[in-house]
Amino acid sequence: MDPTSDTIHGFSYSSGGVVAAAGFSASGVSAGLKAGGKRDLAMIVAETAVPVAAVFTTNKVAAAPVVVSRRHVASGVARAVIINAGNANACTGEKGLADAEATAVAVAQALECSPTDVIVSSTGVIGVPLPVELVLDAIPVAISALDSGDGGTAAANAIMTTDTFAKESAVSLTVGGRRYTVGGMAKGSGMIAPNMATMLSVITTDAPLTSAACDKALRAAVETTFNRVTVDSDTSTNDMCVLMASGAAAGDSIDTDSEAFASVSAAIHTVARELARMIARDGEGATKLVTVRVAHAVSRRDAEMAAFAIANSPLVKTALFGRDANWGRVAAAAGRSGAELDPERLDIWFAGIEVCRRGGAVPFDEEAALAALSEAEVEIEVDLNLGEEEATVWTCDLSYDYVRINGEYRS
Amino acid sequence: MDPTSDTIHGFSYSSGGVVAAAGFSASGVSAGLKAGGKRDLAMIVAETAVPVAAVFTTNKVAAAPVVVSRRHVASGVARAVIINAGNANACTGEKGLADAEATAVAVAQALECSPTDVIVSSTGVIGVPLPVELVLDAIPVAISALDSGDGGTAAANAIMTTDTFAKESAVSLTVGGRRYTVGGMAKGSGMIAPNMATMLSVITTDAPLTSAACDKALRAAVETTFNRVTVDSDTSTNDMCVLMASGAAAGDSIDTDSEAFASVSAAIHTVARELARMIARDGEGATKLVTVRVAHAVSRRDAEMAAFAIANSPLVKTALFGRDANWGRVAAAAGRSGAELDPERLDIWFAGIEVCRRGGAVPFDEEAALAALSEAEVEIEVDLNLGEEEATVWTCDLSYDYVRINGEYRS
Repeated sequence: MDPTSDTIHGFSYSSGGVVAAAGFSASGVSAGLKAGGKRDLAMIVAETAVPVAAVFTTNKVAAAPVVVSRRHVASGVARAVIINAGNANACTGEKGLADAEATAVAVAQALECSPTDVIVSSTGVIGVPLPVELVLDAIPVAISALDSGDGGTAAANAIMTTDTFAKESAVSLTVGGRRYTVGGMAKGSGMIAPNMATMLSVITTDAPLTSAACDKALRAAVETTFNRVTVDSDTSTNDMCVLMASGAAAGDSIDTDSEAFASVSAAIHTVARELARMIARDGEGATKLVTVRVAHAVSRRDAEMAAFAIANSPLVKTALFGRDANWGRVAAAAGRSGAELDPERLDIWFAGIEVCRRGGAVPFDEEAALAALSEAEVEIEVDLNLGEEEATVWTCDLSYDYVRINGEYRS
Repeated sequence: MDPTSDTIHGFSYSSGGVVAAAGFSASGVSAGLKAGGKRDLAMIVAETAVPVAAVFTTNKVAAAPVVVSRRHVASGVARAVIINAGNANACTGEKGLADAEATAVAVAQALECSPTDVIVSSTGVIGVPLPVELVLDAIPVAISALDSGDGGTAAANAIMTTDTFAKESAVSLTVGGRRYTVGGMAKGSGMIAPNMATMLSVITTDAPLTSAACDKALRAAVETTFNRVTVDSDTSTNDMCVLMASGAAAGDSIDTDSEAFASVSAAIHTVARELARMIARDGEGATKLVTVRVAHAVSRRDAEMAAFAIANSPLVKTALFGRDANWGRVAAAAGRSGAELDPERLDIWFAGIEVCRRGGAVPFDEEAALAALSEAEVEIEVDLNLGEEEATVWTCDLSYDYVRINGEYRS
C-alpha cells in the first residue's frame, strides 16, 4: 500500500496506524523477551474505557491470553490492549493463565481501570513459560512511552516476530459532514491461516460506534480480509483481532442501524484488507504477493474451497517462487478442493495470461509469462464457469527462505 | 524395507516386485518422453485376461487415462497395464482421451485381446498434450522386452518421475498348504495426498482371487496404507492403484468368503504398506520418513484429521528438517485440525522423547532430541487421551530440495 493521501473507494489514506484515530495513544518498548533489546511490548490505550469487539482463533489449543481476553471482551468495553512478542504463552497451563491475568491486573492498576478493561495478547514461540516478570517490569515503561504521534509505529514494530516490515494502515472518511478516521496494525508472518478467526491485529476508530456496531463491523470486515489470507495453512493458537472505538470524533452514537454505519464499516473493511494483503506479502520467505480469485462458482463456499486449495498448495507456491506458469498444478488443486467443478469448463489465467481454456492448454509466450511472474504481485484467476459466486484469497510463494526461517526458528 | 527373506507377520519377503507372483511379465523401455533416453514406458502383462480391481483419484480434474481406465476396469478382468512417465495426459481435452484410447487399442492389437482388457496410466507434467506417437511406436518394443525375471525392476524404474529410487515390494505366504505370492511397485514423490484414492501403483498376485475378492482386498489395503500417506497435501489428477490376480498358483478360486481370503488380503496389505512407506520416505526433497501416530481419539475420523493436519503442516515439516523438537507446532496443528481435543489432556512424544504432558511442556534434553531427530526415521506420537481410536499417517520433512525440485520442475 502506498500510505499517501490517494483517495480510494471514497476514503483518503492517512498515516499513524493504530493512533491515526483521535483518542488513542500507543507505545512499543523492550521488555527483554526478544534478543538484542528489540521492541517486544506494545500498548494501545484509550482515554477511557470505550466500546470494543474482538474475534479470536478457532484453534482448540488456544493460548492463555486468548482465553483471558475472550472473557474480558465480553463486557463490550475496554481501555487498553497489551501485546508481547517473543513468547506466545500457549501450551503453558495454569501458570500461563495466571501470567495473562497478572498482566491485565498490572495494566489496570497503572491506568486505574478494571482488569476486565484490559485485552492481553501474545505472539512467539509456543510451549515456553512466559517470563512474566519481564512483562510486569516493562509495563510502567510502556505506559510512560504512550504517544499519540509516533506511538502507532512503535507498537507495530514491537509486535513483529518473523515479519520483515511493520504493518500499518489508516483511512479517513467524511460522513454527514463529520470526519472519522480508522487505523490499524497487524503482524504476520508464519502460522497464518485464520480460518474464521484472524491473526494479531488492532484496529481503532474515533467514530462513536456502539459495542454492537463494533462487533458487527469487525466480523464483516474479518470475514473477507484476514480470513482470506493464508501463508502456510497453519492456524495459530494466538490469533486475535480487536476493534476499539473512542468516539473522540464526537457526534451522535453510531449503532448498527445508523446511517453512518455502512460508511464507517466500509472504512474498517478497507483498513483490514490493506493489513491482510500486507500479511500475505510479508509471509515467511515470500518473494511475492499472490492473489487467487475464483469466479463463477456454484456457491461462495465452493469458491472459497477452491481458492484456498490453490493458495495452500505447496506445488503451486513453489512454482510461483520458480516463476513457472505451471497451471496444471492450479487445475489439480482446484480439482481436489471439494468444490463443484467441471474440468471441461475450467479457464485459468496466470499473471494475466490465459493458459487454460475449457480445461485444455492455451499456447502462451513463456518469455512473457516469466516476465509477468517476476513481478512483486501476481494474480491467479480461475473461472469455474458454473455459477455466480466468487472468492478472493491472498497468499505468497514458498521459497528456500520459508524453509530456512522455519527450520531454524526455535534454535 | 529390507527385501530379504525375513519373515514378518507370517509372510516372507521376496524379490521381483510386480513379477514376483507367477503369471506376470513386465518391461520398462524408453519411448522418448523423458529426456536422455531414460526408461519411461512400463508394461505389466498377464498370460490371459485375469481378475482385476482398481481405485482411482478423487480429484475432479481426472487425467484422461483415469477416465478411460475407470471404464475398462468395470469388466472385472484385464490383461495388461501400460504406464508412461514424463507426461500426465491430464487437462488435455478430447485429444487426451483419444490418445489414452489409442494406447489401449494398440496394446490390445499386439496382445490379441480386447481394448477394455488394457489399463492405461500416465504420470508427469499436467496440461501438455501427450506425444502419443512416441508411445505407440514404443509398444512393440515394450512387448518384446516383457520378462518375468528382471522385468519388474525395469517397470518400476520406468514409472519414476522425481522419485530417487524405484519402489518394489513382494511377500510370499502359505495358506492351506499352497504358496501364494503378492508383489507390487509404486511411484511417488510429489503431488501426493491420496485422500480416499491412491497414487500410482500396480500390485499382482498369483492367488486365484475373484474380481470381487480383488476389489475388496484392494480397497481394504489402500484405506490404511496409500490413503495414509501425504507428502505435500496435493492430491494428483492421475492417482491409480491396480490389483491383478493371475491365479497361476492354482488351487480353488478365492472369493471374499473363502478361508484363504483373509491371509491373501493381509499379504496385499503388507505390500501396499511397504510401498506406501517408501513413497513417504522418498517424498520430494525428503531427508526422513516421518510416522505420525494419533492415539485415543474419540473417533477414527478425528484421529485421521489430527494426524493429517500434523503431517501436512509446513511448520511441523520444516521443524523436522531443522531437527527441532518444536512440539508447539504439533499441538497447534492438532488444535486446528477439527478433531475433538482437550488441550489439558494432550500428550506429545517427539522421536520417542516426551515433550508435552497434559498440554504443558516437559523439560527434555535438547542434545538427545537433536540426535533422535537426526535419524532417517522419526515418529511423532500424539495422545489425545479422550477415546479409543487411533490413526497412523506417513509423511516426510520439508526441505530446501522440495522447493528446488518444484521451483524448477517444468522448466
